[in-house]
Parts: sequence; C-alpha cells; structure tokens
Amino acid sequence: MFDYAGRRKALRRRVPDGDILILSATQVPRNYVANTYTFHQDSTFRYYTGLDVADAALWLSGDGTEVLYLTAPGEDDVIWTGPVESGEALAARAGIERVGDYGRLGEVVRAGTHFVEPYDYGLRERLSGWLGVRPEALGGLSSAALRRGVIAQRSCKEAGEVAEIESAIALTRRMLCAARAAIEPGRLESEILSALLGPAIAKERAQAFDPIVTTHGETMHCESYGHVIGEGDLVLIDCGAESAHGYCADITRTYCAGDSMSPVQREVYAAVLAAQRAGIAATAVRGASQRDVHFAACRALTEALQGLGLMRGDVEESVQAGAHALFLPHGIGHMLGLDAHDMENYGDDVGYAPGESRSTQFGLNALRLARRLEPGFVVTVEPGCYFIPELIDRWAAKKYLDAFICYSEVEKFRGFHGIRIEDDVLITETGSRILGPGIET
Amino acid sequence: MFDYAGRRKALRRRVPDGDILILSATQVPRNYVANTYTFHQDSTFRYYTGLDVADAALWLSGDGTEVLYLTAPGEDDVIWTGPVESGEALAARAGIERVGDYGRLGEVVRAGTHFVEPYDYGLRERLSGWLGVRPEALGGLSSAALRRGVIAQRSCKEAGEVAEIESAIALTRRMLCAARAAIEPGRLESEILSALLGPAIAKERAQAFDPIVTTHGETMHCESYGHVIGEGDLVLIDCGAESAHGYCADITRTYCAGDSMSPVQREVYAAVLAAQRAGIAATAVRGASQRDVHFAACRALTEALQGLGLMRGDVEESVQAGAHALFLPHGIGHMLGLDAHDMENYGDDVGYAPGESRSTQFGLNALRLARRLEPGFVVTVEPGCYFIPELIDRWAAKKYLDAFICYSEVEKFRGFHGIRIEDDVLITETGSRILGPGIET
Repeated sequence: MFDYAGRRKALRRRVPDGDILILSATQVPRNYVANTYTFHQDSTFRYYTGLDVADAALWLSGDGTEVLYLTAPGEDDVIWTGPVESGEALAARAGIERVGDYGRLGEVVRAGTHFVEPYDYGLRERLSGWLGVRPEALGGLSSAALRRGVIAQRSCKEAGEVAEIESAIALTRRMLCAARAAIEPGRLESEILSALLGPAIAKERAQAFDPIVTTHGETMHCESYGHVIGEGDLVLIDCGAESAHGYCADITRTYCAGDSMSPVQREVYAAVLAAQRAGIAATAVRGASQRDVHFAACRALTEALQGLGLMRGDVEESVQAGAHALFLPHGIGHMLGLDAHDMENYGDDVGYAPGESRSTQFGLNALRLARRLEPGFVVTVEPGCYFIPELIDRWAAKKYLDAFICYSEVEKFRGFHGIRIEDDVLITETGSRILGPGIET
Repeated sequence: MFDYAGRRKALRRRVPDGDILILSATQVPRNYVANTYTFHQDSTFRYYTGLDVADAALWLSGDGTEVLYLTAPGEDDVIWTGPVESGEALAARAGIERVGDYGRLGEVVRAGTHFVEPYDYGLRERLSGWLGVRPEALGGLSSAALRRGVIAQRSCKEAGEVAEIESAIALTRRMLCAARAAIEPGRLESEILSALLGPAIAKERAQAFDPIVTTHGETMHCESYGHVIGEGDLVLIDCGAESAHGYCADITRTYCAGDSMSPVQREVYAAVLAAQRAGIAATAVRGASQRDVHFAACRALTEALQGLGLMRGDVEESVQAGAHALFLPHGIGHMLGLDAHDMENYGDDVGYAPGESRSTQFGLNALRLARRLEPGFVVTVEPGCYFIPELIDRWAAKKYLDAFICYSEVEKFRGFHGIRIEDDVLITETGSRILGPGIET
C-alpha cells in the first residue's frame, strides 16, 4: 500500500546514527490475560511496516540492517487462531529482509538504543526488563532525536494517506446519516450510538476513538449514553471511523431532535458555524499557524455572541483576555492521521515549535496544536459553544472578565447544553481543502 | 443491588489476619494516553464494591477499618467529563465509611499486604513502585490466602447473581435472533456482527468478550470477520452480552446460510447436540465433577462419530486415549460470572481442587474446569465438532490413534469447518438448570 522501505530510509536520514527500536502494540488484558481488548496497532509501527501484528518490533541497526522481530506462534496456536502468515511473508510485505525472535530482543536492546518511552504499560514492563531499569527510568532513556524525526515525517501526509483519511470520512458520513435518521424524542442516546456504529462494524472498521453521542454537549468528552432524548434536544455527535489502513476521521455534527431548531438554537448554531468557517478560512492563509486559526474562530464566535447579547466590549481585547473560553474552553483542533490526535503520545513537540510552549491561560492551555501549518498537514477545525453550569457559576461568582461577559444574559442559557461543528482540513501549497465528500451541517 | 458489606465481611472471615488490598481497573491507553480502551472494571473490585470507577482501591485493614481509595477529579475535569459523584457518595453506595486519596496508597501498601498479582500492566507498574520492587517480583509477594478466599466466595453465585446472568442471556438471545435474521449468502461476516451487536449497544451493554462470528468454526477463537458467507455455509456465533451489573452470558449457536442444512451438516449437528445434551445431563448428577461432564460429552460425540463412520473401536478406550480431541480439542466448559472465564486471572486454583493438576493429554490440557461441581456454580457446556486441516494432517501423518479414527473417512470432511453449541448451566441442590429464556438450537 505505502512505500514502507522508503519511509524507513527517510527516518534513517533524520536519525543518522545508532540503532532504532520501534515496538508494535501488545494484546492488552481486559479482565484476565486471555480476554484482551480488541487489538489496535501502534501508529508509528504501522507507519514504518504496514503490519497489524502484536508483540513485534522493527529494528533499524546502525549498520543499515533492518530486522523484523516477531513472536513465533506455538505449535497448537493453529487450532485456536487459525493459520497465520509466516514471518518471512510478513517481513516481505514490509520490505524487510531479516526476521528475528521477539523473545530474544532483550539481547540487542541497550541503553543507547533510540526508542520512545512507551504509553503501553505492557511494553514499559518489557522494555524496562530488557534494559534492567525500573519503568519510571524509561523517560530519561528516551530518544529526542527519534521522537523529532518521526514527528517531522508523520506530520506531512503523502497523497495516499490523504486518500485514506478521505475514505474514513466517507464512512463517517454514512455513520452520521444513519445516526441522524435514528434520532427521535424518547430514544436513548445509546440507541443512536447503535445506529452510528452499524455501518463501521459491518465493514470491520475500528473507531478512531469512542464516539460522543450526547444531549449534554456541554460536557466535552461525555462518554456515557444513558440520557433519554427529549423533544427539541440538541444531540452532539463527535466520531470518526478508521480507514482500511488505520487512518482516522474526526467529525462533529450537532442535530436537533424534533421538527426544527428553536430560534435561539438556530442563533447559537449560526455562531458556531461562523466560527468554524472563520477557522477554516484561516487555515488557507499562507504562513498561518494553528494558533492564528484558533484566534480567528474565537474572534468570530465572540462577535456572534456579542450579537446575541452574551458578550460585549472590544473583540480583540476580549479574545486576548480569553473571555470566550467561558463558552469555548478547548483548542480549535489538532493534527489528524493514524491517530485521532496524531502523535499525541510524543507530547508537545508535535504541536509546538522548538522553544514555543503552551499558554497557561484557561482555554488556550488546551490548544494541542499551535505551530505554523505546512502543506501536507491535516488538522481538525472544531469550535463549539457550550453553557457549562459549573464553569458559569465559578466565573460569575468572581465576576471574572465581566467587562466582556454579560452574566445576566448568560444565566438565561444555563440549560442550553452545547453545540460543536468539526471538519478535517488539508493544508495545501496554495491554501487548504476540507477533506471528504462533504457532510451536511 | 448486592450486599457488598456482607461480601466483604465474608471475605474477612476467610482471610482473618492482615491488610487486604483490592485494586480497581485503570483506564488503559490504546494508541496514546488520552485515547483509552472503553473502560472495563476489574471483576473482584466490582464484586466487593459494586463501583465502576477507575483508579480506585478497596482497603480492608487488619483492624476492621474499610477505606475506599479514590482519585479526586482535577479542578477542570468537570468541563471535560461532566459532574461526578463525590467520593463520600460513592463510598456510601458501597457501604464504606472512610475515603482515602489513591495517590497516597503507596504510604500504606507494604510487602505483607494481601494482594493478588495484577494482570493489568498499569497496576503492575504502580504496585511494584509502591512496594519498591521490580514488576516481575509481584508474583512472589502475591497472597494465596486472598486468592483462595475470593475464589471460594465468587464460585457460588447468589440468587441475584444468577438473575443477572439470566438477564445477560436474554439480551444475548435478542442479539442472536438479530444476527440469524441477517445471515444471507453474499454477505460479510462483519455484517452479521453488526446485526449481532446492535441490540447490546442500544442498551449500552458491553460484550463479555469479542464475539466470534465465522464461517470458519474450525478455528476456535477466530476473531476476524472478513469472509463472504457462501450458500449453505455454517456460521458459528459465540458471544455473550454483559448484564447491567457486569455479569456475563456465553452462548454459541451454529446456523446455516441458505434454506436448510445438507444431510451431512445435519448429522454432524446432531452429533454435537447429542454431546451437549449428554454434558448437560451429567451436570445434574449429584457429586459430578466438570471432568465427568467433559467425558460424558466426549463419549456421546465419539458414539455419534462412530455412527458417521469417522471413528471406531471401544468408546471408553477411545475417550481415555483422547481420540475425540481430533474433533474436539478443547474442554467442555468453564465457570461463568463477572468474567466469561470466571476468575481466570486467579489461575488453576479456580478449576482444579488442591492437589489436582491439569492433564497434559492433548485436548484435556485445555479443560479449564475439572473440579467437583457445587450448588451455585454456573458453568458453560459447549462441545463442538471441528475439522481442522492442519490437525488432521499432523495426526494422519503419524497414523495417531488410528485404532479409533478412520482417517480416510475424515479426509472427506476436510472442508466441513466446524459446529459448536453452548449453553450456561446452574448447578442446584437437586440437579442443574439451563439458564435463560431458552435459545433455539
């Protein structure tokens, strides 16, 4: 599918010296060892090999040798899990000539090996065992050069990767259509979830993350599905299928249960849509950073909320002070690729340029991606407008930024819940492009 | 729902001295820390607290004090995950008076604390950190007294637990009906999976394990869903929903795609059904062990396969030699409860009496449960008949046990695939009872 050998050569150019170790994901025990969570491959291992196997490793030796370390099946495994591809066949698919025994990886890994600290606790135990250190010590032995090399490479998507993301979005569109058709007052959120997941399960496609399907859109990561949908409720759905090769979509739509939105719902919806359009327009500006995109959306949202009587004062001052964060306490978006938050396991080197660091201002501290956008980046643009009772109470009690916020008006929206609209955008040489077949807002 | 305080008191009677630590499950990272697998509680923590929270612990002090250790939410968590129940409210639900800070658990845990070695690698890293040892050392510090106490208690189900298992089976029946209706030549196995999962997702119910939906029933744990169903194919479905409180169903049915089974399919199906009925009948015999149940089913299968011309010779000798394992290489069943393989994380103390150990004979070595059945046990009875090409080749090449196996006849069944039929059975004071509403075979 992809030129894995070419990718490995390019990585080697970025990390010229030393041995490189890239570990595959493990089968993770759920409630006992033999009952594992549905396997999901590590994205970097997948990027450099295309293989979906567990308990494997890619070894790029300093002398140029490439070895695929695999766990050989036991004699009786054929009975339990069926015939498996030979190690040689797997390696050939990845363009790798040599196969090694994963069980003996401990003999080659040493303190100088380039690796990135694993997020997978099973791998942390293994790797620290091989190195003879405690798991807490792995961070200190982790290779910044490898981390930066992988980030630089995975940040700019090849045309084939963009096509995969678009195929994931096309499937996500089908999921959203099925869910929207299922929304009806009196139903449980989980019934809508069932409709949403159907088309993806039927194609054996994983979800990029557990979908959000909620009448409580004001809870950003609401992952329970137990509310009964009421007449006129807003149902926020944030979801994304994976493509056949593991690339993610990440789309949010907010629908109304019932004949049509109320006038107030329509106005807030229009405010969020204006913010999203402003954000997407900002991605097309040559040299723009995702921080610029964030502020463009915040400005548009602030203007619209002023029109609704919820905010006031100078727009630029309001945005700099972070007043909009009462309604939009998260960042405008993140990288998208083999992970929904692409490469988030590599930390802020993904979203921030060297020397840059995250703001500590509330709201801006949740901006995962701030750096200058480059052709080939795929990013999400996902503003929202939320009325979070606890946050309103906290700010109102302190009259926090009340030069910009009309708390007495905000109070009237206490039970509104929330709206978010999200699309995935490719940065091109000449501007930007919304990916996918187009999903009705 | 259940008398959690009473359960804890009963455990204390079984483990009279020392401090007991029972850890909840963690949020397990999938491809980065913030993207976790759908949370699933540890069954023992759930059994003694009824709580579905992550990163918590139950501490039963040697002096009789009970403490629920919890991770307090951060100040901004309300924005991301919504309002949460207070620690005091959670503890009250479990009937526990004191709440402690999970982050300080390391100050109380010590080498003499009763705990069971965790299967969760995140917990292994934490617990070994608290104890100041390497994760590999945890097995040696694990408490056999606690393990045996929990096994003894969880093995005999209360009436309320049986009712929960039956509610899980009722939902599983609905899943199987939906799946069966969806089976059609030309469809993908994954399309049947989508139909199967729909009713469970709509009720926000987890699966006890990843379902098996396959035209390759001869692969015992086939967990891919990519085959196209052909006219007349057998589709084996092995699945189980969880109940509202986490109890599992585990049911297998084998359906035919098309108008009806062929005469040969019908004969093999009848052989498996006879074996299952013989097994279920054996569970009703006072004083029977699950090993007896296993052999009753193997005998019935052997007799039926002799009728089909696939086997020959003295039935008892054949079964003792393990000749049937060519067709049925797994055990007849296992305990069922909060886990599909109930308490499998506690090892063979669950299925084997003290001093007993697993046979090394092929087939019998996969018998998870062999001990004497007691009233309150819930067990699965799940014989199958499989034609595994690799296994047939391996045995035929050696003419292994050919006094009992007619290899030339077996050869004719090479492409037959496999059939399994499974139900869940409660051992009662007077016999046994198939649980659930009855699922058509």
